Amino acid sequence: MASERNPADGIAFVDGSYVPLVEARIPLIDRGFVRSDATYDVTHVWNGCFFRLDDYIGRFHASMAGLRMSLPYSKAEIAEILTECVRRSGLRDAYVQMTCTRGVPPRGSRDPRLCENRFYAFAQPFVWIANDEQRRDGLKMVVSSVQRIPPEAVDPRIKNFHWLDLTMGIFEAYDRDATVAVLTDGAGNITEGAGFNVFIVRDGVLATPDRGVFEGMTRRTVIEMAKAMGLGCEVRAVSVAELHDADEVFITSTAGGVMPVTVVDGRIFGNGKPGALTSRINDVYWADQHAAGHVTEIDYAR
Amino acid sequence: MASERNPADGIAFVDGSYVPLVEARIPLIDRGFVRSDATYDVTHVWNGCFFRLDDYIGRFHASMAGLRMSLPYSKAEIAEILTECVRRSGLRDAYVQMTCTRGVPPRGSRDPRLCENRFYAFAQPFVWIANDEQRRDGLKMVVSSVQRIPPEAVDPRIKNFHWLDLTMGIFEAYDRDATVAVLTDGAGNITEGAGFNVFIVRDGVLATPDRGVFEGMTRRTVIEMAKAMGLGCEVRAVSVAELHDADEVFITSTAGGVMPVTVVDGRIFGNGKPGALTSRINDVYWADQHAAGHVTEIDYAR
Repeated sequence: MASERNPADGIAFVDGSYVPLVEARIPLIDRGFVRSDATYDVTHVWNGCFFRLDDYIGRFHASMAGLRMSLPYSKAEIAEILTECVRRSGLRDAYVQMTCTRGVPPRGSRDPRLCENRFYAFAQPFVWIANDEQRRDGLKMVVSSVQRIPPEAVDPRIKNFHWLDLTMGIFEAYDRDATVAVLTDGAGNITEGAGFNVFIVRDGVLATPDRGVFEGMTRRTVIEMAKAMGLGCEVRAVSVAELHDADEVFITSTAGGVMPVTVVDGRIFGNGKPGALTSRINDVYWADQHAAGHVTEIDYAR
Repeated sequence: MASERNPADGIAFVDGSYVPLVEARIPLIDRGFVRSDATYDVTHVWNGCFFRLDDYIGRFHASMAGLRMSLPYSKAEIAEILTECVRRSGLRDAYVQMTCTRGVPPRGSRDPRLCENRFYAFAQPFVWIANDEQRRDGLKMVVSSVQRIPPEAVDPRIKNFHWLDLTMGIFEAYDRDATVAVLTDGAGNITEGAGFNVFIVRDGVLATPDRGVFEGMTRRTVIEMAKAMGLGCEVRAVSVAELHDADEVFITSTAGGVMPVTVVDGRIFGNGKPGALTSRINDVYWADQHAAGHVTEIDYAR
């Protein structure tokens, strides 16, 4: 059956084997599922090259340490597994995920210390957070009534699957004729949305929230780029009012790079056209990946 | 291979079939796993009888509605599937879980509305939240430094797998020579722990938190029992100070009923012995299940 699958639909690494993604499974009683006791990271491949692969794997290792998990794979071995997933898929553009779960507890036990942590990885066709039209014309955003899970409960720097707040935000966005939602911290500040960070531009200066957010790699890249481009970029609390009053708004994600937002809570920005600075940053982001030495080329022929 | 498994190790219902629990799997890319986009409920079987089965299934249906999920199974059909899991396992005492996941999105999509929701269920040997000795002699509890995910972010009445806060609490309990942790709301009040609610007893009156907690069925049963037993039971904010100053402390869970806590943050309660009222309530809880008409007998011979 496996041989009939198209590898370009995705390849996963499960229990030490490479399998078609659609056939990849995890145990129903892995705490990674039934307690969302897991951490993950996502990197992307563009034009046959990984972006910041070592940074992503380094962050993944730090997340595992934060949850007191460990795997029998070195960083180099994880890089090789991810590369092999992409190589076998043949995909030149891919979304590549690595996941560590707590594992299955011994029978009758609830002790997470007794679980053998498990590693899962996969490469699948690149998933854009926004479609072609949305990336060209801009996204519609709402400020959700749902609050983001606070850092005092779950450390957002440890990338995790606790997304019910973000998922309910997605539904709210659809209900309100938008496509993405940003959640607040419950104290008047914005945090992040489902898989993306938020930047505002005001008088040519960027600002992005410093707290209660996952510190995304694209966010980090834009902060670094801003410096190189001679732009101011403030990492600080950003209020809902500032979002509403911004000159430009954009979101950043591994699944799409830098994407313009042209409507927030029904308010239209820049006559509904993506901001000039946003477009410039997006162009540099995609052009810069090679220039900054951030890419790792995949040898598909090996 | 399946035939070699011992059914008493657990039976699951997956994709319309009954399989040994240890072989039960879910797709790696089900949003139920990779976004913890799922709800579940747990009932138990004791002496061959389900406890409050209709109440549990009713709550499960309400949770699905809250997450905008639906299944092609009626409540009666879910009851029959759960019963069949137990019947095939032959277990007289069992932990029985029902789960609904968002499902796998169509290729290239992130829209949860386009997923076909999936149902998973299983029966496995009864898992006690505390071992025999702990239930007899009492549990050691700590007040965790981790806060519980607040209701403004994730509605705790919708039973969910967002447990990283609770899991980190478990690790903290072990680090501090205890077995269970109760999390706070960050404002000086206690909430709940990993799979249990908390009650305090002071001057013969019970109190349990009203907010930021999952409204457990055993908690509900104890509140109902207290009324029948002529005991006061207050459902309100309960501070950490009140917990420390209580005469007795106990926890409630489907996985164990009513369990005494004899140490909180190193402070010993009642000379380290389970409180008299706690023991009385536990006895009534187990004796009362038949008396209150809360049980559904399983016909194993069918």
